[in-house]
Amino acid sequence: MNIAAILAKAETSSKASLNRLLELLRIASISTDPAYAAQCDEAAAWLVKELSALGFAAAAHNTPGRPMVVAHYTPKAANAKTPHVLFYGHYDVQPVDPLELWHTKPFEPEIRNGKLYGRGTSDDKGQLMTFVEAARAWLEATGDLPIKATFLIEGEEESGSPSLVPFLKTHKAELACDIAFVCDTNMWDEKTPAITTRLRGLVHEEVEVTGPSLDLHSGLYGGPARNPIKALSAMIAALHDKNGKVTIPGFYQGVAPLPKATKKQWSKLKLNEKKLLASIGLKSLAGEKGYSLLEQTWARPTAEVNGMWGGYIGAGSKTVLPAKANAKFTFRLVGKQNPQKILKAFQAFAKKHMPKDAKITFSGKGGGAPASEVPENNAYIIKSAAALKEEWGREAVLMGSGGSIPIVRHFKDILGMDSVLVGFALNDDAIHSPNEKYNLTSFQRGIKSWVRIIGELAK
Amino acid sequence: MNIAAILAKAETSSKASLNRLLELLRIASISTDPAYAAQCDEAAAWLVKELSALGFAAAAHNTPGRPMVVAHYTPKAANAKTPHVLFYGHYDVQPVDPLELWHTKPFEPEIRNGKLYGRGTSDDKGQLMTFVEAARAWLEATGDLPIKATFLIEGEEESGSPSLVPFLKTHKAELACDIAFVCDTNMWDEKTPAITTRLRGLVHEEVEVTGPSLDLHSGLYGGPARNPIKALSAMIAALHDKNGKVTIPGFYQGVAPLPKATKKQWSKLKLNEKKLLASIGLKSLAGEKGYSLLEQTWARPTAEVNGMWGGYIGAGSKTVLPAKANAKFTFRLVGKQNPQKILKAFQAFAKKHMPKDAKITFSGKGGGAPASEVPENNAYIIKSAAALKEEWGREAVLMGSGGSIPIVRHFKDILGMDSVLVGFALNDDAIHSPNEKYNLTSFQRGIKSWVRIIGELAK
Repeated sequence: MNIAAILAKAETSSKASLNRLLELLRIASISTDPAYAAQCDEAAAWLVKELSALGFAAAAHNTPGRPMVVAHYTPKAANAKTPHVLFYGHYDVQPVDPLELWHTKPFEPEIRNGKLYGRGTSDDKGQLMTFVEAARAWLEATGDLPIKATFLIEGEEESGSPSLVPFLKTHKAELACDIAFVCDTNMWDEKTPAITTRLRGLVHEEVEVTGPSLDLHSGLYGGPARNPIKALSAMIAALHDKNGKVTIPGFYQGVAPLPKATKKQWSKLKLNEKKLLASIGLKSLAGEKGYSLLEQTWARPTAEVNGMWGGYIGAGSKTVLPAKANAKFTFRLVGKQNPQKILKAFQAFAKKHMPKDAKITFSGKGGGAPASEVPENNAYIIKSAAALKEEWGREAVLMGSGGSIPIVRHFKDILGMDSVLVGFALNDDAIHSPNEKYNLTSFQRGIKSWVRIIGELAK
Repeated sequence: MNIAAILAKAETSSKASLNRLLELLRIASISTDPAYAAQCDEAAAWLVKELSALGFAAAAHNTPGRPMVVAHYTPKAANAKTPHVLFYGHYDVQPVDPLELWHTKPFEPEIRNGKLYGRGTSDDKGQLMTFVEAARAWLEATGDLPIKATFLIEGEEESGSPSLVPFLKTHKAELACDIAFVCDTNMWDEKTPAITTRLRGLVHEEVEVTGPSLDLHSGLYGGPARNPIKALSAMIAALHDKNGKVTIPGFYQGVAPLPKATKKQWSKLKLNEKKLLASIGLKSLAGEKGYSLLEQTWARPTAEVNGMWGGYIGAGSKTVLPAKANAKFTFRLVGKQNPQKILKAFQAFAKKHMPKDAKITFSGKGGGAPASEVPENNAYIIKSAAALKEEWGREAVLMGSGGSIPIVRHFKDILGMDSVLVGFALNDDAIHSPNEKYNLTSFQRGIKSWVRIIGELAK
């Protein structure tokens, strides 16, 4: 296996690779808006055609929503030890409004200053095409792939993936691989590759606190009558202690301390916390004392209020003592925190903090997902990290993400496989926003990174 | 003077009186919302037309806000000893939201089971029409009034009366009378009339707490980023101690203990606290420990949140960490509490309770009014009590009110006159709430009560 030859192939095909990506980008495959269903079908068909031409057994499967593209490749020389790897991406994109803020049309991609602008360039068409084009380079240079590859490319990621779990369940045998690679993630910076090894989990809840049976006059009843805004505020205030720790009993059950090596690696990144905070108008860390910004975001759980309302919220003053107050909460989870236990613990905590005559009810639908963490000594992570270092000349950062990628959890729960998250997006790609972009270096070196990773996996 | 004949006139005109009130109720004269300015003008014009038809010299005076209706009547046989009495009411009403909780439309008044339902039925159109209709009964029965009467009917009572003080100052000579009667108050119960001799003062404030410079993703930034909803909640939670006492430093300055005699009179009323609380869906007193319900409402100050909002408040979940949160507050004042000092003390308190990166700003316009108390041996109170006893067959209760009627303070300070507060509203009138109502007996016997009070005043 001569990696250099395959990388050379990727280089000489660079312009053709870009042209194929441009073709895919021109298809307005917005999944949230049913008006674009035909374009989603078109994008799925385009991928099936491309992958079939490469020698994959590819098909677009119907779902109650948008089609699911599945493609399989079995090497000529495959044996029982050949690893079977699933690559996951999505061909659907976010809506484009507000359209007037785009400098060029979202579905007429343009290159300016080494960056490719357009909807889906970074999220996720540019990223998913990095591994499609890497497979092509292997096939064109060597006539084969050194691994068994399954591509799963969905079309509903931007609209909550309603068909995904049922599809994974009914196609379990076909999709269960040794490992999944998910390409939705970022580099540490434009020169430093990264593997995301930890994603926080998420569970949400909505509460309503009722007091009097009707809105009251705050003069006539103010004093004797319980005010549900105050009751809810007091509960919210009690959620954290003065050091920013969540006070819900049992909340930290399953939260392990950060491994020393990881702590050291993150601290070596020398993140400019002041600068990052300043970019969002802040000066100080508001999370748990004793933890860095990266630790607070990647390795510590949170209890957050996302919305709250009660009483009169129009213009001017209204002397009302309201009958109820509401709030929405999300809890970001790490380690082995159990979403259902966290919900129950929060509910018990909230009930306990209600004073007399304040009743609290919960309308969350349950659900939620625990955190996903892949051990840093996982063999696929070690191989991927080695390949990334070869390509970029720098150690890959093993990082976390404060957000959640539910697919990772579903792969684990339904298909029993871990995920390695490697992506080449950057923080300033403006995904979900006007003028989304993907750096050409992300695309070109992303392809070469996957060429190397495929090589490493076959070793 | 034959009171019986005038009362008989009031009885035979009862249906016509009600129809006139219904006309006024159909005008949606909401003063807090500028969208209803035309309806406020219409209500003022309607009153001018009615009072002019009765022989009053009536006019709607322009102000920077809603018009001020002033009408004067001088009896044919007036002499130097003829008392000059000012009657005050307001034609503006509260907003109607939440509209979906009304059983009938707020501005299409309906009678059900002897009760008149609609916005303003009790606060204050029904009440103010009791003395307009009493004057009509006198005029129709005798061709004259036995007292000099000035009607002052404003249109900004529900929005803080911004034009009132300037108007009183510029119309001082025209408006200064021997005594003012204010009709905004309640009976003790539906069989027992009352005169209100103490009113709490009022000052309000609105705050905005800002955190990050934009709404953030609660996954990516939850933890490190300050959440303004939490900051505001903590400040609200800190406003009271565990005994219900307001914790703002200096808040109780000027609050005297209740005189023993008054405490005894109120306790003789044997108010069924449990029953009253049950009528508003509550079981326990939420105010300062150690005080009865009447004391908490009539003789103790409060700090109340009237509204609060921040973040995502639509349906479903949105993982936002909001850039700001807002709340509206009112403080009810007693004794010699100074509204401006209270505001300043609150602002200092609120600022002190903001954590790092949470900035609080105040948009209240200042203003406010201290509490008002009239001595119970005032001659007009004694005459009014005698007339009420004649009409209702029971002693009038000399009570307090938890609400604020700043006009009483302004009449004293600017025009040098005391106020006697006589009204026929009931605790269950749901003023400021959906399904506001006024009992027909309140309206009909209220008219007759004023017929008698006018007679007593002329003696």
